[in-house]
Amino acid sequence: MKVKVLILPRKGLLDPEGRAVKEMLLENGFSVRDVRVGKLVELEVEEDTDVKAIAERFLVNPLVEEYIIE
Amino acid sequence: MKVKVLILPRKGLLDPEGRAVKEMLLENGFSVRDVRVGKLVELEVEEDTDVKAIAERFLVNPLVEEYIIE
Repeated sequence: MKVKVLILPRKGLLDPEGRAVKEMLLENGFSVRDVRVGKLVELEVEEDTDVKAIAERFLVNPLVEEYIIE
Repeated sequence: MKVKVLILPRKGLLDPEGRAVKEMLLENGFSVRDVRVGKLVELEVEEDTDVKAIAERFLVNPLVEEYIIE
């Protein structure tokens, strides 16, 4: 099965890429309120794989990032 | 509203980070078949914002990336 781990910088934390994208979109006439840029990891694994363990041990830094599994 | 743009390198294209994550997971006993590492952009925009236009004009390189909007 394919599973996606969606990783974003925590709200309020430094996200220079998100800020840059936001400013660039505003300059181009799109009214965006907020932008966060994070990471997407798509895993192709067996049904019984503990994706939460993979995410928490290897992919996500909980100090500065939050994640969801889809 | 919040919208996510999920961006992944096209299948078969160079994805050194995905390969590195795959190898590291295999070394740690997780049987993964494939890993792709891409980008996640979360936008907070008005209801009528053309997120497809934003994605295609500013966020995605269609030569090497594919994307979905959620």
